[in-house]
Amino acid sequence: MDIKVLEWTGSKLVMLDQTKLPGEETYMEIDDPVLVVDSIKTLKVRGAPAIGIAAAYGLALYAVHSETSDPEEFIAGLRKTRDLLASSRPTAVNLFWALDRVVKKAEGSGVDDTDSLRDLVVNEAVAIDKANLESDLALSRYGKELIQDGDKVLTYCNSGALATAGYGTALGIVRAAWESGKKVHLYACETRPLFQGARLTMWECKKTGIPATLIVDGAAGSLIAQGKINKIFVGADRVAANGDTANKIGTYTVAALASLHLIPFYVAAPVSTLDVSTNSGQDIEVEERAADEVTHVMGRRIAPDGVSVENPAFDVTPGSLISAIITDKGVLKPPYAESLKTV
Amino acid sequence: MDIKVLEWTGSKLVMLDQTKLPGEETYMEIDDPVLVVDSIKTLKVRGAPAIGIAAAYGLALYAVHSETSDPEEFIAGLRKTRDLLASSRPTAVNLFWALDRVVKKAEGSGVDDTDSLRDLVVNEAVAIDKANLESDLALSRYGKELIQDGDKVLTYCNSGALATAGYGTALGIVRAAWESGKKVHLYACETRPLFQGARLTMWECKKTGIPATLIVDGAAGSLIAQGKINKIFVGADRVAANGDTANKIGTYTVAALASLHLIPFYVAAPVSTLDVSTNSGQDIEVEERAADEVTHVMGRRIAPDGVSVENPAFDVTPGSLISAIITDKGVLKPPYAESLKTV
Repeated sequence: MDIKVLEWTGSKLVMLDQTKLPGEETYMEIDDPVLVVDSIKTLKVRGAPAIGIAAAYGLALYAVHSETSDPEEFIAGLRKTRDLLASSRPTAVNLFWALDRVVKKAEGSGVDDTDSLRDLVVNEAVAIDKANLESDLALSRYGKELIQDGDKVLTYCNSGALATAGYGTALGIVRAAWESGKKVHLYACETRPLFQGARLTMWECKKTGIPATLIVDGAAGSLIAQGKINKIFVGADRVAANGDTANKIGTYTVAALASLHLIPFYVAAPVSTLDVSTNSGQDIEVEERAADEVTHVMGRRIAPDGVSVENPAFDVTPGSLISAIITDKGVLKPPYAESLKTV
Repeated sequence: MDIKVLEWTGSKLVMLDQTKLPGEETYMEIDDPVLVVDSIKTLKVRGAPAIGIAAAYGLALYAVHSETSDPEEFIAGLRKTRDLLASSRPTAVNLFWALDRVVKKAEGSGVDDTDSLRDLVVNEAVAIDKANLESDLALSRYGKELIQDGDKVLTYCNSGALATAGYGTALGIVRAAWESGKKVHLYACETRPLFQGARLTMWECKKTGIPATLIVDGAAGSLIAQGKINKIFVGADRVAANGDTANKIGTYTVAALASLHLIPFYVAAPVSTLDVSTNSGQDIEVEERAADEVTHVMGRRIAPDGVSVENPAFDVTPGSLISAIITDKGVLKPPYAESLKTV
């Protein structure tokens, strides 16, 4: 399979428009950080790791297009672009992690010519991109050991190559298990309101050949109760110091079902998604998105005009419901307040 | 509010096409039982009680349009029409209950002229319709006592006037509480795949003035965990002798969440929905519906072509998770194997 999500050309960022999937595979050429912000806000690129990489390339776009020869002015502009990109979405921690890594690289370099600074910024963005793929592969290798022949795995939203611009995290684990010859069947929750499961996870399964069945989100409980699903793997947008995990709205529901039915519930999260500076889930800001994501589907109204809507983009699953957190540095077990400190 | 769902004109059945809501209020004139079957299959009329009434009127249509003057031939045709109507959907027990009530009325009448038989059939269908409204009102009066000022009530699918062709069951309870002056706020799960919550429950709330907020199905868990929802009321398609309840797919998930968070989970079911001849949920046939209900929304594809889908229309909530079953004869408490025998 070849899924190209983000590609750096040296002066532009080529981006797959995920809002058009699965109908169309459309690539956009982006040459301005403002367009990266817009792409993140409108979910043309989504998934915590992919957002981080896109944002890093947003700084690279600033760097290659900045015309100043004054290093201080260059750094000031870099910081301004950082703030702009950081304003795109509040929940995914990889965004801030990637932006800060690039800005600190330039700030702390001691370099005083703008050409070298430009190279530093671009190279750091490229390094983040490359490290991300390696991280996905490492995480998937660790995670696939948790899958046995005959497993029926549920996943939520999309945490595949599309979400990481790499190999994938939770879906990467299932993919690694499948590619290593294990007989695994995936159940994909469609993931309302934006159907990332139906549109993106099922598209990736078709590309990779992973046997998969699509269900509505409400069907997960019944299938788990009937024993048709025996493990759950999901991605993460942010993991707090105690293991509390923000992920797509609906994740908490399947975690609760797993807990009730005593099946394992695993979170796949690269180290860049761990945020030990956030004490617990209560401290994670959850983005509220527009009502029309719920009242309309593909531009068509499904609810009466003017109804009240709550549309949180994420929910928080308590660390106590998580069987293990699979990172690129190994599999972390509870208590997470301890194990998260080790990576 | 005036919600006209089914209306018998004496020779025709006028039916609101619920598949067109909330965009259009379209009424169809039906004069053939075959069209009643089609309307039930395609969900133009849905909701267990409304299906029962529509089916009874399907027999009334047979009666008024049958041209035979031979009583035996009339009864044979009635039975054939009964079987045709019974084949429309397998899960809702009211369908079979209403059909059998009408057929038995004719069979057991001892009447031997077809004109009188015709009248018997039509009158029995009308009686079922009238009794249903009274049953809804009684059930809602019992149920509203379970709602206190300030309650935040979750409901799933649509169990209002649209579902019963009367006043409603679970939504009727909320409506009765609201109309009696109680301050209640409703959260409506949109209810994928067919959006009965978004399309129908929100439409009824707008008509009746019940304050309501629409959420995606996956958001219920997070809102319950945050204490934003403190009670759940749902309808039922069939209640087995031990209290196990078949209702719209996704109901079990919210029942499980209620159990985990120790909030009450109530089932509203008129006596016609109770089926003590079915021992437990394992014996309830659950209808599997077409994949395109999941892969398409309003004719537009949201999942890749040719993907595998599981689309059960219902799930079964164990009686052990149900705090009480609210009927038109009173509120039943566990153990249901005992209390269901009393009504």
